[in-house]
Amino acid sequence: MKIDGKSYRTIWLTDDGWSVEVIDQTKLPHEFQTLRLVSADDAARAIKDMVVRGAPLIGATAAYGICLALREDCSDAALHSAYSALAATRPTAINLKWALDAMIEAVKDMSGSDRLAAAYARAARICDDDVEICRQIGEHGLALIRGLAEMNPGKTVNILTHCNAGWLACVDWGTALAPIYMAHDAGLSVHVWVDETRPRNQGASLTAFELGRHGVPHTIIPDNAGGHLMQHGQVDLCIVGTDRTTARGDVANKIGTYLKALAAQDNDVPFYVALPHTTIDWTLGDGVAEIPIEQRSPREVTHMTGRTAAGEIETVEISAPGSRAANYGFDVTPARLVTGLITERGIAPASRDGLLALYPEHHHG
Amino acid sequence: MKIDGKSYRTIWLTDDGWSVEVIDQTKLPHEFQTLRLVSADDAARAIKDMVVRGAPLIGATAAYGICLALREDCSDAALHSAYSALAATRPTAINLKWALDAMIEAVKDMSGSDRLAAAYARAARICDDDVEICRQIGEHGLALIRGLAEMNPGKTVNILTHCNAGWLACVDWGTALAPIYMAHDAGLSVHVWVDETRPRNQGASLTAFELGRHGVPHTIIPDNAGGHLMQHGQVDLCIVGTDRTTARGDVANKIGTYLKALAAQDNDVPFYVALPHTTIDWTLGDGVAEIPIEQRSPREVTHMTGRTAAGEIETVEISAPGSRAANYGFDVTPARLVTGLITERGIAPASRDGLLALYPEHHHG
Repeated sequence: MKIDGKSYRTIWLTDDGWSVEVIDQTKLPHEFQTLRLVSADDAARAIKDMVVRGAPLIGATAAYGICLALREDCSDAALHSAYSALAATRPTAINLKWALDAMIEAVKDMSGSDRLAAAYARAARICDDDVEICRQIGEHGLALIRGLAEMNPGKTVNILTHCNAGWLACVDWGTALAPIYMAHDAGLSVHVWVDETRPRNQGASLTAFELGRHGVPHTIIPDNAGGHLMQHGQVDLCIVGTDRTTARGDVANKIGTYLKALAAQDNDVPFYVALPHTTIDWTLGDGVAEIPIEQRSPREVTHMTGRTAAGEIETVEISAPGSRAANYGFDVTPARLVTGLITERGIAPASRDGLLALYPEHHHG
Repeated sequence: MKIDGKSYRTIWLTDDGWSVEVIDQTKLPHEFQTLRLVSADDAARAIKDMVVRGAPLIGATAAYGICLALREDCSDAALHSAYSALAATRPTAINLKWALDAMIEAVKDMSGSDRLAAAYARAARICDDDVEICRQIGEHGLALIRGLAEMNPGKTVNILTHCNAGWLACVDWGTALAPIYMAHDAGLSVHVWVDETRPRNQGASLTAFELGRHGVPHTIIPDNAGGHLMQHGQVDLCIVGTDRTTARGDVANKIGTYLKALAAQDNDVPFYVALPHTTIDWTLGDGVAEIPIEQRSPREVTHMTGRTAAGEIETVEISAPGSRAANYGFDVTPARLVTGLITERGIAPASRDGLLALYPEHHHG
């Protein structure tokens, strides 16, 4: 996607051919900076500190983290040590493990410079595949939005999204936002209600930034507002991303997603989740019971960073001093609240049968 | 209630016997300042700018606004002009209209100094009545919490609340928080999950401040987190306040309340609303369709004020520059999601019959 007319992915090899550059998402929307990663440690830190975030981009960054580790030391020991360090950075997104496993598979029978070359090739393919997968998700979601637009000719389709599942969360295009970009580009009238997504405000800072740079009409709302808007017919469709999807269609996504899904159900608003196959964890069924939920620093809740009137970036304490805070990163939306899963292979009901119909290769027995 | 050992109400007559002093709630939790109101305009501005907020306190402040207007000009014209100006400050809280009507009723057949004296007497009684009403709400709610504590001996009762319906929202005690203070004072083990309540953070700034000063264990959470906590059995009870309650038990409360009520229902968590009779609007039935919902400045969403590490109070822009924001003040929770209404007369089912059983004087025909 483009920023100020220049095309970007969220992660790319620099001109030296081996080090990796990413957009520093902790600085957005106030500053656009990139960061160069030269070691597996750098990659792990970028994931942990949310310089990069979003399940697909976490996977891509981890893949390059393996490359950077192997560049320093091509041994099996170094490979497995990097795998462990990178796998431990964030517990909820399953793409991380998927990408790391794909890297191991690609290099396990090789050594030396062959191993290194295979690693870089596999990481590049993970990135390219992600772009193509997101494009396909966009096409399937576009058909959905087009259908809503045709039901109400001349009317804007109002879409609510939570957190950021746009191109900044992926390598390009995005998952939940890909259909929106395609609908906008196809000339359909769309407007996006952007949940600000406390505590880290990925909606207000990243999704609004993305949509604004692409010219898609949108309005930032507090996370509290979605239910009210749905009660008053101002939301036609919800689309969100997911960090892990169980085999029966439960989805872990940014904390607060579950509340929007409840409101959508209560007001007959379709609630879709967009995902690449890499977020499906075929080993899990009951997402609420089984998906590990990351807890992050309370400081993300009690403090807020932004730009002062004087143009300085400043952090302020916004809560009563001395009060404790808790910071759960994700919640799980049960499949019963999900209208459908938008994947690169089409739209499936959120159920084991629905997923297996699209991914028959996971049918065992 | 006490701040640093000194007893406060949220509004009181100053030593001059006529001007009115309030706690400036826009400065909390970072600074404790009081503000002196000397005219009806001052009172209207204090309500509009949320120096005072919370349905009962808005009513009390408006009542004193009438006194301040009459002190300048005792005429019917001045009375009705002050009524109109004060009534227009906030559209959702019905106590405002209730208090203003009570003031008119008290002074309409009087003139001159009698009228002024009657106004001050009525305003004082509104305040004293509110304190007593909140105390009674506290007693009824205490019985509820005691019941939960007795079901699980030795276990802490975890209570989730949204926004601030504590003593800062009233004259003293609070509505939703009164039972919590009484339970804590009675030696029951209670812990409060405090929704931060974006965009103005009344939970993180006011409720956490109140609970902290009173020594009640509590944890601030993003508004997004309540559903996750309920899914995992970490909430035993929700208690919130309301700005307007319809005759059938629908409740308008701070935006986001509806989402928590949905999560409570989905997880079999009891969801109670605490209210004085003054928030009941007997003229309305369907709250979603009929209660006017205030829209406030987008700047409350896009900017955030807090304390810097250097100790300065600073406002920072937290959203993508150039993006629009919307700021709905309240949402409506349908009666079907409300387990019960905790009033000064006892706990009623959220229904017309339930309310009429407690307030038979409103039974017509």
